Amino acid sequence: MTANLFDIYAPHPEPSELTAFSQNKLDRQAEYRQDDCVEKALAVEGTHILAFTGSRLILKHDGQILDPLFAAYELAELKPDFDNAILLGYRETGEPRVAVPVLISADDLSAQYKPTEPRALFRDSLIEEELLGEVAQAVALINWNSANKFCGKCGSPTEMKIGGYKRVCTKCEHMMFPRTDPVVIMLTVDLERDSCLLGRSHHFQEGMYSCLAGFVEPGETIENAVRRETVEESGILVGRVRYHASQPWPMPHSLMIGCYGEAKSTDITIDPQEMQDVRWFTRAEAAAMLDAGPDAKHFAPVRGAIAHRLLRDWIEWSEERSGKA
Amino acid sequence: MTANLFDIYAPHPEPSELTAFSQNKLDRQAEYRQDDCVEKALAVEGTHILAFTGSRLILKHDGQILDPLFAAYELAELKPDFDNAILLGYRETGEPRVAVPVLISADDLSAQYKPTEPRALFRDSLIEEELLGEVAQAVALINWNSANKFCGKCGSPTEMKIGGYKRVCTKCEHMMFPRTDPVVIMLTVDLERDSCLLGRSHHFQEGMYSCLAGFVEPGETIENAVRRETVEESGILVGRVRYHASQPWPMPHSLMIGCYGEAKSTDITIDPQEMQDVRWFTRAEAAAMLDAGPDAKHFAPVRGAIAHRLLRDWIEWSEERSGKA
Repeated sequence: MTANLFDIYAPHPEPSELTAFSQNKLDRQAEYRQDDCVEKALAVEGTHILAFTGSRLILKHDGQILDPLFAAYELAELKPDFDNAILLGYRETGEPRVAVPVLISADDLSAQYKPTEPRALFRDSLIEEELLGEVAQAVALINWNSANKFCGKCGSPTEMKIGGYKRVCTKCEHMMFPRTDPVVIMLTVDLERDSCLLGRSHHFQEGMYSCLAGFVEPGETIENAVRRETVEESGILVGRVRYHASQPWPMPHSLMIGCYGEAKSTDITIDPQEMQDVRWFTRAEAAAMLDAGPDAKHFAPVRGAIAHRLLRDWIEWSEERSGKA
Repeated sequence: MTANLFDIYAPHPEPSELTAFSQNKLDRQAEYRQDDCVEKALAVEGTHILAFTGSRLILKHDGQILDPLFAAYELAELKPDFDNAILLGYRETGEPRVAVPVLISADDLSAQYKPTEPRALFRDSLIEEELLGEVAQAVALINWNSANKFCGKCGSPTEMKIGGYKRVCTKCEHMMFPRTDPVVIMLTVDLERDSCLLGRSHHFQEGMYSCLAGFVEPGETIENAVRRETVEESGILVGRVRYHASQPWPMPHSLMIGCYGEAKSTDITIDPQEMQDVRWFTRAEAAAMLDAGPDAKHFAPVRGAIAHRLLRDWIEWSEERSGKA
């Protein structure tokens, strides 16, 4: 068979699939959400619930076992807020999956419950990939709904509709839909020197370096956002941009758009307001950082992070192409 | 030189550049926006202003010439709302570019002014590409600011900050940032039958067919959004997904993410609620539709639309690869 437009070389056919939070297999039935869909879902026997305090998933723990799935009756003592429950979708078995915020704070939960931030869920592999994807969807929607209790146009209270995917103003009827913030995250590569550009923000763990990143601005293409953010944070000029992978990132409701950028300059000038350090790493250095732990002098983000994916795939790509693998 | 990760074949090195609204060359100085930046920009002699009534750009017209650039004094009779003015950025000459909403409605403007929707600006080529990019940025920000006059968390009034890129609640200090909605738009291709999938919504102009499209949902990768929207609207299963181009789309503030999808089935089942028709077109049919006008039985979106780009590049791609071009 001759090459076609889908035959572009990459170390994996769909790198997005290898990022944390991406394995959501629910049938969302996005076009068929009704105002009573949560109520109907909760009435289905065997419906399992993901419960959240703020944006933290509540895990039941009983010795070694962590269980994120609640039956409705198990929620009673956690003050479930069913009026703000969200229908995520349906499992392959037909079982609905519902997310329920609870009104008890993380600090007031008894010891048998472990409230956990999404980041820790994937970093510590506390729940399986598919559930992680469901959590990403749930947290993004919980965050959006809780930040839009009032109408931005007139200040009146809004009401949740169609299972958490719309809010309507009780006075002016302004409609609001869930928000997803596109963020570009890029590995800028110097092809000649076989090096990549990594940096650290002031809030990073000591020793950690990652890809540069930033929000796509209004009126900007993905490629222009990659070039603007890179030059702003590092002074490095970027030419060609290649999309590689995307990842849902529910802090609070982003879509990470992972790209490679081709470096067109080498001298780094950092923006000290935003970055603590930006530097070039050779392929060998970057490879070592992927496998190093947080005790190493320099280390990269953990597996599941899209920055890890961009780095690892660049290394594998280079090795395979140069015949070293 | 051996192939590197940026050497992937496409009819154009960066197809995003060929979409309308993408040619914004302003230096945004995104990290250095201050609360007095608009005031300072307006004080610079020779600053030009883009003026808007709602989301329509106001063009001055004097016989045949349409001019979108106002000096501050020229705005006086249009009731300029300088408190809600936005600093877009700086031209290469150092000249600041400011967007100013006016309080006079489109209907009340005198005949020398022509208020024009962004879509008409590009469809009728009324202003140059670079200005079109500035308009995309301006309209997205005007739309976002006007929809967020009140705090979503507590309902109190919000205040515009840093030239229109932040709003802060006057009571609870909740901070809000501009919103950009990622939308996937995809040309699904049947490689074996050399055909592509196009559809029409109920509101389309008679005869027009375009790519399927839809908002990326919370907790979804780009690839999964392409597959979900395609199967929802057409019943067609998609396998591999390839990103191709992106486009700012300021109605009200979207980022179009253009992809190719590889069809894995052929039998179409439309969702009659959302689509009026979806069908397969051969490459020859699609090529004819690109060059046909609105009087033709079937025609495709105009040049500048990302759907046009996806179609034209698929056709060129196929022709070059099969040796026909």
